[in-house]
Amino acid sequence: MFGKKPQLSTDAYKGVRDFYPEDMAIQRYIFDVWSMTAESFGYERYDASVLEPSELYRSKSSEEIVNEQTYTFIDRGEREVTLRPEMTPTVARMVAGKRRELTFPLRWYSIPNLFRYERPQRGRLREHWQLNCDIFGADDYTADVEIIALANQMLLNTGAESDTFEIRLNDRSFLNEVFASQGLSEEQSAAMLALLDRKEKINNFDEEAAKIAGKPFILPTEVPRGSTLARVIAGLRELNITNVTFSPSTVRGFTYYTGTVFEFFDTSSENNRSLLGGGRYDNLTSHFGGDAISGVGFGMGDVTMRDFLKTHDLLTSDITAPELMVIPTDGVHALEAQKVALAFRVAGVSTAVDMSEKKLGKKISLAADTFVSYVLILGDDEVKNKTYALKNLETKEETSGTLEDLVANLSE
Amino acid sequence: MFGKKPQLSTDAYKGVRDFYPEDMAIQRYIFDVWSMTAESFGYERYDASVLEPSELYRSKSSEEIVNEQTYTFIDRGEREVTLRPEMTPTVARMVAGKRRELTFPLRWYSIPNLFRYERPQRGRLREHWQLNCDIFGADDYTADVEIIALANQMLLNTGAESDTFEIRLNDRSFLNEVFASQGLSEEQSAAMLALLDRKEKINNFDEEAAKIAGKPFILPTEVPRGSTLARVIAGLRELNITNVTFSPSTVRGFTYYTGTVFEFFDTSSENNRSLLGGGRYDNLTSHFGGDAISGVGFGMGDVTMRDFLKTHDLLTSDITAPELMVIPTDGVHALEAQKVALAFRVAGVSTAVDMSEKKLGKKISLAADTFVSYVLILGDDEVKNKTYALKNLETKEETSGTLEDLVANLSE
Repeated sequence: MFGKKPQLSTDAYKGVRDFYPEDMAIQRYIFDVWSMTAESFGYERYDASVLEPSELYRSKSSEEIVNEQTYTFIDRGEREVTLRPEMTPTVARMVAGKRRELTFPLRWYSIPNLFRYERPQRGRLREHWQLNCDIFGADDYTADVEIIALANQMLLNTGAESDTFEIRLNDRSFLNEVFASQGLSEEQSAAMLALLDRKEKINNFDEEAAKIAGKPFILPTEVPRGSTLARVIAGLRELNITNVTFSPSTVRGFTYYTGTVFEFFDTSSENNRSLLGGGRYDNLTSHFGGDAISGVGFGMGDVTMRDFLKTHDLLTSDITAPELMVIPTDGVHALEAQKVALAFRVAGVSTAVDMSEKKLGKKISLAADTFVSYVLILGDDEVKNKTYALKNLETKEETSGTLEDLVANLSE
Repeated sequence: MFGKKPQLSTDAYKGVRDFYPEDMAIQRYIFDVWSMTAESFGYERYDASVLEPSELYRSKSSEEIVNEQTYTFIDRGEREVTLRPEMTPTVARMVAGKRRELTFPLRWYSIPNLFRYERPQRGRLREHWQLNCDIFGADDYTADVEIIALANQMLLNTGAESDTFEIRLNDRSFLNEVFASQGLSEEQSAAMLALLDRKEKINNFDEEAAKIAGKPFILPTEVPRGSTLARVIAGLRELNITNVTFSPSTVRGFTYYTGTVFEFFDTSSENNRSLLGGGRYDNLTSHFGGDAISGVGFGMGDVTMRDFLKTHDLLTSDITAPELMVIPTDGVHALEAQKVALAFRVAGVSTAVDMSEKKLGKKISLAADTFVSYVLILGDDEVKNKTYALKNLETKEETSGTLEDLVANLSE
């Protein structure tokens, strides 16, 4: 299975990550917070393959993205296949495919890995994982409130304080009204949307906006009374979510949003960036035929989540070591050690058997160094008398007893 | 993001699967049994990207596999990249890459998705998931016992009886001794190994074996006393694992095995096939340089696992529905419903808010049909009095109280 030439590189492919156990523990913690929160809101998990027919991503506006920013290749059956760059087209395909069998509204979530063929940089690897949460087929503004409340709760569930992030809110349909009221054509409106998306990055917005509009453009700073935007903000306040600001320049690049759009922003100056974003869309499934299915959802990346947790010191180093290490004093007891270990394992206690070729004292200190909680030393006496001692490596306390006693003790 | 042409197909890419929530629930159950069992044996989880440099899979013996049976393509940086067809080369790369920092023996497991470019058929999709468990750097035969005990426990943890499968055991080094004692050259030995691998599928083994050996070939039927094989079998018996048979024709195709090899076979006539397999290897990391690192491990696929569970009726339909559905009698209470729901969610109770546009009776029966356990109806009285009733949809029992009372009640 391996290359014949010596000294094969141990590097991973460019722009992707290896997850050694300590990294994997963080990754699993993030996934657990995501899935636990989504499920607490009644969202069901789905998934699909990373391989999708390329036609799923093709449209006039994104031809360039498919060709230059995705991993796309021709398979041996002459099919064009793409490693999914985002999950929305996949979930639209799946929802459309079973629209007659599914009961709406649907609450679905997924944690796919996504691929983009771009230069690796901080937070923008070629492969990352992303939480995707959506409600399909719910038109009421309270669905928007719910999805924002879910994203908010997900951050709070990491132990974050609500002042560590800010929720920036806008509404695409409101922007469209603003554009129309100032006489902008469809083309001008599209250009203005693209300009708004860059507003934070440029310092001559007014000038550029006037160029597009052909006259001074006025960006509203107040939320109009009675608007959906006002109701969403009031709804969030009812749920005690008050770190919300109206942000008229938040548009979220993707063209499919049609209503509420939002971004969560880190308030720390060390991590001054968007944490997650989402919004409402009228119709994701039209290209598959059938009636329009609306939705509201958001996505959040694992790298962004990890940076957020690090910035706010919310990452406790997760322990991946077994709870108990059974240490035979001599190789002759190695099998007996497996027998003792199995009794603990079956009772749900994570238990390893020491197989290192080290001295006993070294074996014990090694166990302590790798965060094992208990050791059980197995020597001639223990094997003969069938009485064992369980040593707590932190408190140094020892508990003696039969195997049955000790298993009952630890599996509590 | 979506295609312009109408009626885009809703089919997944050929040979891969969509996981709708009901399928995903089964998949997650399988992954949970796998990870729970591996962790109970003290194994730590790792992962890597599906993208690997193609050179990782190149060797004289597998050139054909890389070229014809894998997804391999050239990226835009002229790098040849392969969607991993198996996990062993990846884990060898990772272990070799940090060999100086890692403390051996290592107990590692992973649940990667793997890709093979072949004709889809039952249990042989183009993408499947596989549990991989390995101990690296443990030479004692009790490591072999441990890894087989882990695989055994994993099946028992699904509720399977030990008579639903049989453990077929052999030893590559023992076979080599047999070949040598009958005067077979290296070439003849390799041919004999390949023939043994096909023994169950052909009916003229003796004839073919004699052709290779140039004389009658005698395949032993007894385990030699004092051999590693005998010790492994005795060790498993000590752990009460007795569904073990010596199987001189079990060789496991891969060339890297050098000692113990094993396969678990389903004993049901309806699913007469290998469930999982593995073995011991001397040196997986030589192509990366440095000293030899030995190991013993096994792999098991998700499709095989699912078929096993189905065959033996071990799949209970997992419930993905929320535990509680809050049902506002009218849209005007939709936001209050979110507020009530949030109190349950924060307390860890999976809670959805009904947003269907149906009559109340229909909403309740729909909740019951989708396996929701409780409903809380929210009408004018409840909102006014702040007293709510929780209805158990199975027992029809109702519990009334304040929100605090009911949250405490359900989150117990």
